[in-house]
Amino acid sequence: MPLSEPTTSPRAPASRGSVVISVDAMGGDRGPAAVVAGIAESADKNPDIRFIVHGPRAELERMIARRSGLAARCDIRDAQGVVTMGDKPSQVLRKGEGTSMWSTVESVRNGEATVAVSCGNTGALMALSMLRLRKLPGVNRPAIACLWPSRNPQGFNVMLDVGADIRADAQDLLTYALMGASYARNGLGLARPRVGLLNVGTEEHKGRAELKQAHELIGPAAQVANFDYIGFVEGGDLPSARVDVIVTDGFTGNVALKTGEGTAKLIADFLKDAFGNSVMSKFAALLAMTSLKRLQKRIDPRRVNGGVFLGLNGTVVKSHGSADATGVSAAIKLAFQLAQSGFQDRLAARVAQSLGPEAGGELISKGAS
Amino acid sequence: MPLSEPTTSPRAPASRGSVVISVDAMGGDRGPAAVVAGIAESADKNPDIRFIVHGPRAELERMIARRSGLAARCDIRDAQGVVTMGDKPSQVLRKGEGTSMWSTVESVRNGEATVAVSCGNTGALMALSMLRLRKLPGVNRPAIACLWPSRNPQGFNVMLDVGADIRADAQDLLTYALMGASYARNGLGLARPRVGLLNVGTEEHKGRAELKQAHELIGPAAQVANFDYIGFVEGGDLPSARVDVIVTDGFTGNVALKTGEGTAKLIADFLKDAFGNSVMSKFAALLAMTSLKRLQKRIDPRRVNGGVFLGLNGTVVKSHGSADATGVSAAIKLAFQLAQSGFQDRLAARVAQSLGPEAGGELISKGAS
Repeated sequence: MPLSEPTTSPRAPASRGSVVISVDAMGGDRGPAAVVAGIAESADKNPDIRFIVHGPRAELERMIARRSGLAARCDIRDAQGVVTMGDKPSQVLRKGEGTSMWSTVESVRNGEATVAVSCGNTGALMALSMLRLRKLPGVNRPAIACLWPSRNPQGFNVMLDVGADIRADAQDLLTYALMGASYARNGLGLARPRVGLLNVGTEEHKGRAELKQAHELIGPAAQVANFDYIGFVEGGDLPSARVDVIVTDGFTGNVALKTGEGTAKLIADFLKDAFGNSVMSKFAALLAMTSLKRLQKRIDPRRVNGGVFLGLNGTVVKSHGSADATGVSAAIKLAFQLAQSGFQDRLAARVAQSLGPEAGGELISKGAS
Repeated sequence: MPLSEPTTSPRAPASRGSVVISVDAMGGDRGPAAVVAGIAESADKNPDIRFIVHGPRAELERMIARRSGLAARCDIRDAQGVVTMGDKPSQVLRKGEGTSMWSTVESVRNGEATVAVSCGNTGALMALSMLRLRKLPGVNRPAIACLWPSRNPQGFNVMLDVGADIRADAQDLLTYALMGASYARNGLGLARPRVGLLNVGTEEHKGRAELKQAHELIGPAAQVANFDYIGFVEGGDLPSARVDVIVTDGFTGNVALKTGEGTAKLIADFLKDAFGNSVMSKFAALLAMTSLKRLQKRIDPRRVNGGVFLGLNGTVVKSHGSADATGVSAAIKLAFQLAQSGFQDRLAARVAQSLGPEAGGELISKGAS
């Protein structure tokens, strides 16, 4: 079996040099200026991306015109409505047509763009994406996958679900394992990712009933779907070099993600305090600037900016609400990599192959027998 | 209502100058030498503690005799059996009599010591403690509470449950709130702790059903039990200054605890790498040594060493399995503080007052009405 994903795709993957990304200019905490600045940064770095940008036309035209050469790379879609951080997903589903977020997803739905990027309200974006893109056959619960700074050569591990749904049964966890492995292959370039299931201990008898069931399902599936299953992992393993993909339910994943971010922020603040405390240590901090910058680069959340929605008929990248130009640019870079690898079609084929298009698990049993 | 806990206690709290701590010398990763070294450190710092030390008598006598003046402060109880990290709790319940861990808990059970300390197998220690000390009236699921470095003046927040049980219903979460508040008052000296419920968002409509129910229960209970309930908090709030006690189920709490520890360890390693990279940065690190040590002191896991078992007829402090002398000494210090404050009896009275001795929740409804 080849190491790459099966390529029996209904749509041809985007060829090099022609990737179109659909970007929601509105809904982030820093407004459209930060998003346009991020688009400009990406455009400068990568001549192969074109953009469809969604939001109020007059405002966006003005902002884009100020950046040299950018207007020619951007197609602006007028959308006057904005989904705010406080909007409930159910409201957005009912009244969201005409918002920049709806329009952004629509460009992926109708095939104009390969991947959508938004800094807006996560719950609303997931609800809209599910409504308009629909779930992939065989997927019961879509998931959000995030990148986690790690000791691995690739620099990051994948964790999913980090908040698409607050619960997951054994079959959902199996689907997450398949989707997470596919994401690691296409997004991080790992030929044979190692997948672990998050639990409170590594012994087989530990944890909730659905985890023990998932443990029984994922092992056999790994052989068919071309990844290694390493069994249960613990919270301390999230940045570990013994695993590449960590599978968990969206409640636990969301708490873990925010706990990790909060801890990193706490230490960064303590570090700042420590170095600001005396003339001697300020001088030392000055000398150590290069080292400190190197450290910051390794754990900078802006560099790992972009939760990816998996399990839909189309790929959506959720950028942090507070993302600045660097953050938006990182999310666009991720979207570009996924688009270029033909990720969406590979993922769909992998799920179909492993789970069967209708009833889940059938092919897996055959594969394991 | 006075700010302190009610003191209608069956046993009198230990008076100053006479605190006895029961210490399990075995079962930790570093063996009895590290435990005896920790006891010696505590004995030096605090003349008011006496110890009952459990393990193989000959070996312990030799180790203790080497420390000047320590033998007079220690009562050795011979126990030849050792609970290992690999032992299943169910095995230990059946065959554990004669182990140092069993003997350690027994000294609290029969009233010779006020608090037990062990570095051994957490699951076995909890199972043994439940069997021998029994649950407090009104408590369905005991919990393990840990300390978390925070931005608060007291330096730490309390989180529970971090692994006594893998699930908790709304009533259990209410009990955790009561017990956590009592621990924060007696262990951290906070007159009126602020309690938050861990969720994936702070909006009232978010989260699992049992969290919404618990939210409804804890609010009214706060008035009676003399703490402030601040509602839902997120993973990023664990080190925050807007909360003192974070309530969650043992699965989520365990993952969060290990995720936080793992993140801190990752950053510490990256920091070491960064400073070890060039002559200039090594020189800077040397200059910054005081600052770095100050930082390390604030996040050193050994200083917050000690998970406390809450909800039993007796207090048990679980020290890290890998604890060295400093870690063991920190756990003993925590045990001493709790013993001296009469924590156990205050906690029991608080739970009885708030939940009623038999059926949970009765007095709370009255108090809220």
